[in-house]
This record gives sequence, structure tokens and C-alpha cells, in this order.
Amino acid sequence: MNTNNKRKIIIDCDPGHDDAIAILLAAANPRIELVGITTVAGNAEVEKTTVNALKVCEIAGIPHVPVSKGAGQPLVRVRETAPDIHGESGMDGPLLPEPTKSATSEHAVDYLIRTLMASEGDITLVPVGPLTNIAMAMRKEPAILGKIQEIVIMGGGTFGNKTPAAEFNIYVDAEAAKVVMESGVPITLMGLDLTHQAVATDEVKERIMAVGNRQARFIAELLDFFSGTYREVFGFEGAPIHDACCVAYCIDPTAFECKKLRVDVETKGEFSYGMTVIDLLGVTGREPNVNVALKLDRDKFWSMLVDTIQNYN
Amino acid sequence: MNTNNKRKIIIDCDPGHDDAIAILLAAANPRIELVGITTVAGNAEVEKTTVNALKVCEIAGIPHVPVSKGAGQPLVRVRETAPDIHGESGMDGPLLPEPTKSATSEHAVDYLIRTLMASEGDITLVPVGPLTNIAMAMRKEPAILGKIQEIVIMGGGTFGNKTPAAEFNIYVDAEAAKVVMESGVPITLMGLDLTHQAVATDEVKERIMAVGNRQARFIAELLDFFSGTYREVFGFEGAPIHDACCVAYCIDPTAFECKKLRVDVETKGEFSYGMTVIDLLGVTGREPNVNVALKLDRDKFWSMLVDTIQNYN
Amino acid sequence: MNTNNKRKIIIDCDPGHDDAIAILLAAANPRIELVGITTVAGNAEVEKTTVNALKVCEIAGIPHVPVSKGAGQPLVRVRETAPDIHGESGMDGPLLPEPTKSATSEHAVDYLIRTLMASEGDITLVPVGPLTNIAMAMRKEPAILGKIQEIVIMGGGTFGNKTPAAEFNIYVDAEAAKVVMESGVPITLMGLDLTHQAVATDEVKERIMAVGNRQARFIAELLDFFSGTYREVFGFEGAPIHDACCVAYCIDPTAFECKKLRVDVETKGEFSYGMTVIDLLGVTGREPNVNVALKLDRDKFWSMLVDTIQNYN
Amino acid sequence: MNTNNKRKIIIDCDPGHDDAIAILLAAANPRIELVGITTVAGNAEVEKTTVNALKVCEIAGIPHVPVSKGAGQPLVRVRETAPDIHGESGMDGPLLPEPTKSATSEHAVDYLIRTLMASEGDITLVPVGPLTNIAMAMRKEPAILGKIQEIVIMGGGTFGNKTPAAEFNIYVDAEAAKVVMESGVPITLMGLDLTHQAVATDEVKERIMAVGNRQARFIAELLDFFSGTYREVFGFEGAPIHDACCVAYCIDPTAFECKKLRVDVETKGEFSYGMTVIDLLGVTGREPNVNVALKLDRDKFWSMLVDTIQNYN
Repeated sequence: MNTNNKRKIIIDCDPGHDDAIAILLAAANPRIELVGITTVAGNAEVEKTTVNALKVCEIAGIPHVPVSKGAGQPLVRVRETAPDIHGESGMDGPLLPEPTKSATSEHAVDYLIRTLMASEGDITLVPVGPLTNIAMAMRKEPAILGKIQEIVIMGGGTFGNKTPAAEFNIYVDAEAAKVVMESGVPITLMGLDLTHQAVATDEVKERIMAVGNRQARFIAELLDFFSGTYREVFGFEGAPIHDACCVAYCIDPTAFECKKLRVDVETKGEFSYGMTVIDLLGVTGREPNVNVALKLDRDKFWSMLVDTIQNYN
Repeated sequence: MNTNNKRKIIIDCDPGHDDAIAILLAAANPRIELVGITTVAGNAEVEKTTVNALKVCEIAGIPHVPVSKGAGQPLVRVRETAPDIHGESGMDGPLLPEPTKSATSEHAVDYLIRTLMASEGDITLVPVGPLTNIAMAMRKEPAILGKIQEIVIMGGGTFGNKTPAAEFNIYVDAEAAKVVMESGVPITLMGLDLTHQAVATDEVKERIMAVGNRQARFIAELLDFFSGTYREVFGFEGAPIHDACCVAYCIDPTAFECKKLRVDVETKGEFSYGMTVIDLLGVTGREPNVNVALKLDRDKFWSMLVDTIQNYN
Repeated sequence: MNTNNKRKIIIDCDPGHDDAIAILLAAANPRIELVGITTVAGNAEVEKTTVNALKVCEIAGIPHVPVSKGAGQPLVRVRETAPDIHGESGMDGPLLPEPTKSATSEHAVDYLIRTLMASEGDITLVPVGPLTNIAMAMRKEPAILGKIQEIVIMGGGTFGNKTPAAEFNIYVDAEAAKVVMESGVPITLMGLDLTHQAVATDEVKERIMAVGNRQARFIAELLDFFSGTYREVFGFEGAPIHDACCVAYCIDPTAFECKKLRVDVETKGEFSYGMTVIDLLGVTGREPNVNVALKLDRDKFWSMLVDTIQNYN
Repeated sequence: MNTNNKRKIIIDCDPGHDDAIAILLAAANPRIELVGITTVAGNAEVEKTTVNALKVCEIAGIPHVPVSKGAGQPLVRVRETAPDIHGESGMDGPLLPEPTKSATSEHAVDYLIRTLMASEGDITLVPVGPLTNIAMAMRKEPAILGKIQEIVIMGGGTFGNKTPAAEFNIYVDAEAAKVVMESGVPITLMGLDLTHQAVATDEVKERIMAVGNRQARFIAELLDFFSGTYREVFGFEGAPIHDACCVAYCIDPTAFECKKLRVDVETKGEFSYGMTVIDLLGVTGREPNVNVALKLDRDKFWSMLVDTIQNYN
């Protein structure tokens, strides 16, 4: 297999319904080489998100992709999870057998450091949960900063879903997000402004189910549960497939309109802790540090997802 | 003159180009009784904003409306002004003679307290600058809280113009804004989300100039300067007539779509000081305290302004 | 009466046991001219502290000294009082008749502004409660800054009694304290480092009672209650007569060792809100702004108090 | 050698003059088994502090004790060092040859985790620099929490030396300090209140020089430089041997009067960032979490140091 044209990515995740779809999209898309998966506490405790990641790997048919368990707690804060959105298991809905595959014995932080240091600087990190593992790796081995091609983050936005100002992933570990955002590494941010354009409506779900394979059914089951909580909690017509947007960006950046902007992470605020303060109007006069995704080409995005699921057979 | 059907308002302002338009709109609209004007430091020092207010009163032909000078500094912070937006005088552009009328000898805070306490609870406060005077009056005489019909504030929004998170009026005195927002008085908020829908385009300016009277020419001159700075600083096609939105709301609330939401003022943040944290998605579960204007009926708004200017002759 | 050699002071207070002693000390000491008394919410609600001040005036025999009621709430924060230390009335213990004298109709803030502006710059402010009135006066009429001879504050210190970091008066209105501390006016600070050297032991109480007049008995009754709560809450052998230290300083500064130091008020901290950050070691390199009292000559202090009480007859 | 009666410690340090003395004290005292040394950025960059630690090991004659290099940057903040206090090398003064020994290839965080997990819960951590390594180890492997016998920290106090409120070690990485202080592990804190009782006066230096061996001369040279900067920066009569107090406590806790108190780390304050807020008066009503050293038996302390240095020969 010639992997030269493929984009190498490591997904750092806390599955999580949309995390699962992100993995399935990465595993079967010909433009992506999924180098590894690391897990973190977020939507649920890290023990649960690791089991969920392993289960998804089995459905995705990627036994060769290593899964490394990472941080069970944020860098500084006390852990918060999201059972109201993702259920008790972190990925409620589909009934799945226990995974046969195990996580590696290597800590996610060490896996990231070792893999990046051994690379030619051609690996993109795709963190779609709290940024604890990435920040801890940066602090443990600063030399990785020069080895990361890009970081494509799901998190933040000009508004929040955990609080009015803060999106869940950034809120859960704002100190880690601050470390990453100030690292100097090229960053693309898929915030809520973008991911709320990727709502899986009933029509979308039908297109996916029409593919007819096991993976399509699994995704449909994920959407059943996930859209249910989004309807109940937020009054949305379906769930936004936040995390898949990051993988989609790695597959085809032309599906996204982005703008280079200054982004700072608020870690002191009383009502805005965990906010990504995005300088849309350019009022700070400070150097842009993040490529912020603002507009999604919905047609391209959903077609990319449906086409990729068809690769499973 | 029967004023029974008119809405009584006190404009607390820091003219300011859009403040001037707000006064002109209030002075000539048959649905409004402009009880008084108070001034505050904001767009410029309070000495300048007071002179500007007096000048506008002369153009508006309202010698009977008292102008009271208020706070020259924010409640706690150090003063900041906006010469980049409003020029050195706070109302650069039109050349106006020195006012013949003087401000009253009464401090704005005392004027507010005395007038409210003597009222039947039928006065609406329309603060379109930093909220220093209103907060100080609330703290000096808490009994006014039960006497204020409503406060229609220009300030805040889900994004900022002074910083990425904070709008100028709230940023300049966030502590005062916190006092007002937590006061329990009915509040309607005209934030940037709303006022950026009230951009005075060239077409709007032509409609105004077509009215042909002195007041129309004055407004056109204000817009020439104000739109110039907005084009330069923000890349807008014209200036938003922020402050006039508050008076327009008092004239005809049906021109505005509003929603009762929880709003908190951030006074601790590193990057978000002065932000109005607006719970659009209802994630805090806390009681709504502010009626937030979200959508403007542009046709109604501009027609209201043009029609009112025609009342000058 | 020749008052030329007397130091003119206005006591701004929230009686309060030690506030009462401060007033009695000022009223009868030949070196002090007590110009007026203003009240503020602090140890109890402002309605209660005003009644208490009036009662103390009657005992002190100073019907000519005006008492003006001031702020009932802090500048920005929500009010907190100290019934655990001063009882429900704010001055529990002595049983006193209702005062025959009334407070003036003038608000304390206006009294301060009017009196200072009419003065020759020879009045010292002695705030021994939260600094709300002083800060509000400074913001309402900045011209008073040049008219205040000195401000001798009871508040703050290198440690706290309301929280580990914050003393009660500063904690209750830290924003006001920040305004005052940054005002540029000469300030002497009697913090807990100093006032905890002024503990009224049983021996002290006996010396006072030995004076034998009505005022001495009143002070003894105050000390009975006040020392009781200090023993219970803090394990002290008696209550520190905090507020009287400020008046004592105005009478005889040689009873105090002071040092000019940089003092900042913390208004953002999670665990240190309301702290006076005092640069004892000079590590900030910033200009000293406060004369901080560090050591009390106990002999001089108690003798001054006992001698002054003997002036009552 | 029977090590059963010895207290096993790992010193986590940033030598640093007083760090060096701490190591020398641990290496030669019969009651201590120095298991390992880890290094961290603090007084100087971690590359420098690691070299310094290796040099000190050679002087101390402990080639068997592993030295592991740790974090080069704080958990979240930007690094600050202290060349004004410790010179450019972090240990200016004595002229030492380059070390022949090398640091291990294992990161300090991994060394700590591996050693603690393999232990019987009988190892005490002695961090005398910023707490980055300890916090990172706790977050990477939370299971170590149950394996640490005690943490004896040099840091904090009721006042500061980096700012008026914050001691250098805590200030440099307050987020790490917060993690450690809230960990639930038994902690003894040697803050400035204690360590400023351990000032090496000229008399102390003479006692040390009188020992006459190479190690004594080295310590004297350290004191020459270190006392010089303390005299210049703080006006002290000599330098406090902060870090050695922690090792002394492990050797003989009876030389210290301690009290169990509530301690919180301020990470939000404007003027008090990095402060250890110590509840000396018990006003928070919260559960004590730290054993705070308050009084040093100077005789015991200096005798212990002099006696131990005599063990070198």
C-alpha cells in the first residue's frame, strides 16, 4: 500500500458519538492514514472512552491501529463529564460486544511523544476531546513542537454549549487548551460556529442508512441516541457531528471556509472560563495564531461521509 | 400638549455621533416625552460629552430639557475613551457653534434620583453610554429600583468591538454594568447583535438628506465622519447607529424581535473583561434577567427615523 | 473654643463596638475636632449602624456633630454583615435608649463632598468601616481629592479575619478600597498587623472601669460583648479595639511605627479577594502609596484612651 | 548497610544554592536514604539545574544516586527564572569542574511514577523547586497518590519573595502547586515563615568552615554568593537556607513546630497569583490539608547541618 499521498493523523478522542463517527470516517477514507488513536477523559471517564474507542476500532476493522489510554483528569481542574449528552457509557445507544482488542501498555502522552519524535514531521494531530494529552506531551517533551505538522482541534467557538461562553472540550481543560493554543504549532479550529452547520438531520440519517452496511447501521444508531439528547437539551433538529468535521478537514480542506485569527483561551473568568476568545473583527491588533473554520460546504461534507461509509463492505 | 400617551424617557449618554441621533429621534417623535438628558464619560471625557449634548439640544430645539453632567470616571476602573471612533471632541465632523444653554448645576446622579423618586414609576431610562451614572444612582438611593419602568441599554452583545469579547460601553465600566444587570429592574438590551443590523448605508444617508432640513443635514454630517471611522477600523460599509436603536425601541417595540435571556457581566476575565455573557442556548438553567434584542426590522427602523426627522421644520 | 490646634476629622463608620470607642475617643480628646460622622453598611445594615452612631453621640454628649447616613450596599458586590462578631444590632451588649437626635437629611456622600469642598484642605477622613462612601464621593466629585488632608483607614493588613487573606472592611467592598487606595491622597493604614496589638485585655478593661463615669461603664459593656465573640471565634484573650487606633493616630502619631509601602487591593482572586497586598520586602519596585502602621506603643495607646475618658464627667 | 531505619526520600530540585546544601545534607545524614534526584526548571533552566545537580552529586560522593531531568517549563505558564538571586548558572559562586556523571535517560516524571509504583509506599518526596514534575506525575499516573508517604515542600508562606504575596517556587508554577496541594497526599510545607528563620549568618558560616573538609568549603562558597544577593535584594544579613529545611524536617521533625491548616493556592488573582493562602486563624471552617511549619529550633537545625557535614571526610 502506497501511503505517500495519504495524510497521516492521530486521533485523540473521548468517544463519544461524534468521536466514533470521526474514527469511522478516518479508517475508511483513502486520503487518510490513521496512525494511532489516543484517549482522554471528557465525554466520560478515560476508562470508558478507551473501551469505546476499542469497540469502534473493531467495527471499523482496524485491528492494526494502536489505541493508547491517556489522561484521566484535566491538567489542573477537577474532571467533568457529559452523561446528559452522551449517556452513562459515554457512547450510549448502540449495543456492542466487549472489544477483543486491548489498549497498548503505553501512556497516550508517551505514545504521542515517541511517534512524533520518530516521524518526519508529517503527522497531524486531531484532538476531538479535551486537550489534556496534547498539552501534557508538549510540556513533557517540548521538542515535539517542531514535529507536529498541524493540529486540527474540535473545540471552542464564538459561543458555548457547556456554558454560554465555553464549549465543552475547552471548558473541561481550559489550561490545556491555553498551552496548545499558545504553542506556536499550526492550528485549525473547528468550533461550534462550524460544527453546528454539520447537524445530522433525518434526511442525512436516511442517506447514511441507505448505504446498508454494518457501519452505516452503527452510525444510524449513534445518531438516534445523540440526536435525541440534542433535541432535548438544546432543541436542535438533530445532533451536530462535531468531531467528524476535523477528519473531514484533513480529507478535503476545500469543504471549509477558514480565516486566520487571534484566539486566546480564558482561564480566569467568572462567567467565561474556558471560552476561546476569537478576534473576528481584528480589534486586538495581535498576530493571528489559529486558522478558524467558519463555513462548511454541507453538500461536500455529507457526501464525503456517505461515500466513505460505502468503502466498508 | 397631552403627554399621557407618550413614553417618558431620560437619555443617559456620551455624545457621540449615534448618541446625537438618538437625542434627535427622541426630541421630535410624538410618542416620546424626553424628560431629561444626563451625560457620562465614555466616547470622550464628560466635559466634552456634556458640551456635545448641549449642542445637540440646540439643534433639536429642546431648550426646556435639562442636561445634567454626570460621572467623569468609571465606578472602579481607570477611564478609557474612543477618539479613534468618535474623534477628539467625541463628536467630530459637524462644525457647531458653542452652545448657549448650560448644564444644570445638579449632578446627573442626583437628577436621576430626584426625578425618579418624584415620578409615578413611569420613566424609562435609556443609557447609551457606560452605565456609571445609573449604577451610582442605584447604590446611592436603592429606592429608585422600584421607580424605574424599564432600562433600555445600548451595550454588550454576544461579541465585542472594544475587545473580541466586550462592547465598548460595557467594557469601559463593567462593574457598573454588573450592578445594573443584577438590579432586578426590567432591562432590554440593544447589543451589537442588534445594532450591527442598523448600519447607515449610503442609501440610508440619501434618504435622510432628502428630508432637507437642518437636522437632516446635521445627521448626514455625523454619518460622514462616523461611517468613515467604521470603514477604516472595522471594514464596515457604514456606521451602525447603535444608540438610536434604544429610542426606536421605546417608540415602537414591534420593530424588534427580543428574547428573555440570562445575561451576566464578566468582571474577572483576562481576555473577556466587560463581556455580557448571554445564555442564548439556555445552558445555565438560570432565570432570565434581560430582554435581549436579536432582530431588527430595518424598514420600520429607518422609516421611523426619516419620518421623525421630517417633524423638524 | 480655639480649634486651631485641633485636628479636624470626619469619622466614617459602621458601629460596631470598636467604632463606638473610636467616636468616644474623638469626642472628648482635646487634640481632635470631630467635624462630622457618616455611616455605612458593614458590621450591620446602614439603618442599624446609623441608629448606633446616634446613640453613641448621645452618650458622648455631642449633639452638635452631624450624623449623615451613607451607602447601604457596597459599590459593586452584594452586602455582607458580621452578626457573629457584633451581634444582630451591630452593637450588641449595652442596653441603650433610642436616640433623640436624628441623622441629617443629607446623604453621607453629599455631606463629605460639600464639607470637603468648603474646607481649607485641613480635614482628615477616618473611615473605620467599608470604604463605600469615600469611594463614591471620590467618583461623584473628583475635586475632593485635592481637599483631603489624609485618610486614616482601619482595614486590611498582611493577613485577614474574614478570610485568611482579607480583613472584613476591605473584603466587604474591595472595589471601593481599590478606588481609595489608588486615589493618590495621603493614606495611613491601620491593618490587622497593628490593631491586633490593641487587644483590650481584662487588665485594660479594669483601668477603664476605674474611671467610673457613664462613658467608662458603656465602654466596659461594649468590651464584655465584643471580647466574648473574639474569644469564641478567634480564641483571643480579648477584642482588638481596631477602629480606635485610627483616632489615636490622629491624636498622637508618635504612638505608631509606620512605613511607606506599596499597597494594592486584590479584586480578582479566588481565595484572596479583598486582600491588601502589602509590599513589605519591597519586591515590586513600585512607588509606595500607603503609610502602613506596623507597631503600636501599647502604653501610650491605652493611657491616651483612659485619659480621654476621664475628660467626660 | 541496614537502611530500614532510614527515611527514603527523592529530592526534586532546581539547584540553586540552597538546593545544593539540601542534597549535601541528605547524602551524608545517617537517617536519610536518598533514593534519587529529579530536576526541574526554576532558579534556572532545567538544563542548567540538571548539570548543577550532577556536580553536587560528585561533591557529595553519591555516584549511585540517579539524577533524572524533568520539566523545562511550568504546567501552564511561561517560564520565569531567578538569575538575580542565583546567578546565570543557577548556582553561581563556587567554581566546579564539569560533572563526569550523566543524568539518566528517563524523564523525571516517569522516574517518579516508576519508583513510587514499585515502592512499598515508604518514599517521601522533597520538592524544593517549582512543583511541575510532581503535578505532572500525579496527572499522568493518579495511582501514585496512594504510594507517596509524604510530600515535604519548600514553597509558599504567609508572605512572598517573588511578589508581596507569592514565594518564588509557587509563583513559578501555581497551577502545579494547586494540583499538589489538593491531591489529598500528606503534605508538610516549609514556607518563608519558617525558612526565614534559617538565615545563614556569618557565625553560621564560620561554624561550617571550621569543619574543614571539601564539602564544608563548597557550602561556604555557596553562602558567599547567595548571602550576597540576599543582602543586596532583600537587605538580609545572610541567605535563608530554604531548601535544606525540608531535608532537616525528614531527619528530625522535632526541630520544627508545625500546625495542620487549610492551604489554598491562588491562581486567579491580579496581585496575589501564586500565593499560598494559609488559614492561620481558622476562619474558613474548611478541613486542614497541610502541615505548615511555623517555628524552627535554630540550634537543632544548624547543629544537624554542621554534624552531618562532618560525616564527609
